[in-house]
Amino acid sequence: MVDVSQNRPIVLLTDFGHKDIFVGILKGVILSLNPGATILDLSHGVRPHNIFHGSFLLDCAMGYFPEGTVFCVVVDPGVGTDQRPVLIKTKDYYFLGPDNGILWQAAEKNQIENVIHLNQKAYFLEKISSTFHGRDIFAPIAAHLSLGVEIDKFGIPINDLVQLNLPVPEIQGNKLILTILDIDIYGNICLNITWKKFKAFTGECFRLEVGNTQISRVYKAYALSRDSLPFLLTSSSGYMEIAVKNGNAAEQLAVKCLDKVMLTQ
Amino acid sequence: MVDVSQNRPIVLLTDFGHKDIFVGILKGVILSLNPGATILDLSHGVRPHNIFHGSFLLDCAMGYFPEGTVFCVVVDPGVGTDQRPVLIKTKDYYFLGPDNGILWQAAEKNQIENVIHLNQKAYFLEKISSTFHGRDIFAPIAAHLSLGVEIDKFGIPINDLVQLNLPVPEIQGNKLILTILDIDIYGNICLNITWKKFKAFTGECFRLEVGNTQISRVYKAYALSRDSLPFLLTSSSGYMEIAVKNGNAAEQLAVKCLDKVMLTQ
Amino acid sequence: MVDVSQNRPIVLLTDFGHKDIFVGILKGVILSLNPGATILDLSHGVRPHNIFHGSFLLDCAMGYFPEGTVFCVVVDPGVGTDQRPVLIKTKDYYFLGPDNGILWQAAEKNQIENVIHLNQKAYFLEKISSTFHGRDIFAPIAAHLSLGVEIDKFGIPINDLVQLNLPVPEIQGNKLILTILDIDIYGNICLNITWKKFKAFTGECFRLEVGNTQISRVYKAYALSRDSLPFLLTSSSGYMEIAVKNGNAAEQLAVKCLDKVMLTQ
Repeated sequence: MVDVSQNRPIVLLTDFGHKDIFVGILKGVILSLNPGATILDLSHGVRPHNIFHGSFLLDCAMGYFPEGTVFCVVVDPGVGTDQRPVLIKTKDYYFLGPDNGILWQAAEKNQIENVIHLNQKAYFLEKISSTFHGRDIFAPIAAHLSLGVEIDKFGIPINDLVQLNLPVPEIQGNKLILTILDIDIYGNICLNITWKKFKAFTGECFRLEVGNTQISRVYKAYALSRDSLPFLLTSSSGYMEIAVKNGNAAEQLAVKCLDKVMLTQ
Repeated sequence: MVDVSQNRPIVLLTDFGHKDIFVGILKGVILSLNPGATILDLSHGVRPHNIFHGSFLLDCAMGYFPEGTVFCVVVDPGVGTDQRPVLIKTKDYYFLGPDNGILWQAAEKNQIENVIHLNQKAYFLEKISSTFHGRDIFAPIAAHLSLGVEIDKFGIPINDLVQLNLPVPEIQGNKLILTILDIDIYGNICLNITWKKFKAFTGECFRLEVGNTQISRVYKAYALSRDSLPFLLTSSSGYMEIAVKNGNAAEQLAVKCLDKVMLTQ
Repeated sequence: MVDVSQNRPIVLLTDFGHKDIFVGILKGVILSLNPGATILDLSHGVRPHNIFHGSFLLDCAMGYFPEGTVFCVVVDPGVGTDQRPVLIKTKDYYFLGPDNGILWQAAEKNQIENVIHLNQKAYFLEKISSTFHGRDIFAPIAAHLSLGVEIDKFGIPINDLVQLNLPVPEIQGNKLILTILDIDIYGNICLNITWKKFKAFTGECFRLEVGNTQISRVYKAYALSRDSLPFLLTSSSGYMEIAVKNGNAAEQLAVKCLDKVMLTQ
């Protein structure tokens, strides 16, 4: 059922960082249209132009927001081309952003109900730039949505959304090739395998190779390690994570996002 | 006409960054006086002590905020001297900050109606430090303003506001010397010339010299470039900008804010 | 008297930084339980895992927030061990966080009234991870507290809270050994001595030794210095601070947090 209550919260996810005025301008535009809007920052730390990273963060965080939330996602290297701005209505949420695949994984998981190509300019800012659709299109649509405007007012239904799936573990003989999806502020390294899949593949024993380092221990909590060697644990997002107690695993192992690591039974 | 509606939004612009507690304290002071205040961050990434930079960001962002917005601007290297704290009422907005010129360009553009030297200590915090007027003066005045207190309660009218104008293009023979006003998170380089003035000066052809690099292409959108060479486009703020597709123009060209570049017809 | 008014503001202090989604998730959890919550960021720039730093920031900022504020403090290297999650009710505030000492100094200063070991799982998220109690325990408790739930619903009273005190000046003959508590975005160096104690110890003259540099001047405001040599002043938090006019004292003196400096009469 579509939630039509007023003042749905608006949650922003962008690669704008915090030093510029881009985030502030989005909020100004929203507030100009809905003075009582509830605006939250999910993160503005998506790596610049990296739609994989944004897609992953959205997927991890989505479930902690209330029903009816409007996710306004602006990671938009293709802004100003013929790429479409879209709105996806899923079972619980609304997703706004460029049709570059960034919304796909989260929306698909929450069951897509409708997809709208945003082309009703009455809901945009009056002047549309070719460099900042977050401000000119997505923020005003988010504001109108938060006020309860019906989604079919904003454009026409489409069924050919761009699909972008995060890398999955690759089987290579008796090994799994895993991909590093994210590295957090503490240097914890997030891998593209959930605890359940990890357990099904490895059973009791495993060996994870990261460059020349071999990891074969799992702990339930960071503080349970007794040394400064890297170990595995289940991260708060449900994915397996490499960590170092009181240290920075990513620096110690000299890895970066999208690097590969090898898991052996 | 002066807007006297209650709960005007308060928008913060400072050079405080995000790691310290300065921004949080401003919000605590405001909330203590107006528990229902709407507080937005425009940016806390003004370069430390740089009133030119703050002035530029305020000027670019102002127009996207609703009528009645209270801009609380704290970039204040002269705090604790005899510099005056001021409030400027313009056609649409209120500007609060030190009288060091940072408010001038934006306020002037929005038509100044009244300027008040803030000297009514009843509206300050009880104890005034000589190091943090954002907390002791500007935040409490912003809170009272947001609640609809009339501006003449806060102090006395003045007419000798400090004026600070951003650098304009300098004519040198048949050339224009431009100044870099800002570099954003993507490395895009903002120049102090608008599209309209750029077009009027260059006509169809131009050559922009940045160190040893010559730029002579303009694109409408970032993604329309087909290589990794720098090009010009109109930024979302209306100023001309140097960009590199999927790259960082400022790093590639090794420039920084306030550097000069030369434009030839 | 315990404040039981609804919608107490929730103030977040963490070491999560701004690039990840941890802060956004806390807010999503809170908003899911209290759609009208007032949520403020005090800072997410506590140095990773540094409970001393978090304790200091909380102590400095606390007094600027309104009565009834719920401080939700998540700096939690011991998450997932047998460390207790606690709620401290003081004269004016509520403090939520791990029982690792981070809440002690601020709570003690505001007069502790009750301490609760949070063990009523009905107020947690349904699934409790061993890596992110901010999300699973502290955010939901904060939301319930903000709605006015009585504190004794959340767990059982305890009286053996972990106590962590910030380092105090050490007397060494006729000298005081001071500790650097914090360095802010401008490079100002905060020492663990208040103006009152500084004055009582030094009288009219003093010499502060920082490595090979000797400092013997005090100014009332940053801009009153006439050169680029380091000097002392009273910071906005009431502690003595080493600063350099239009410069970065910490870089110039090559010091870092917890370094020692020597004060002589």
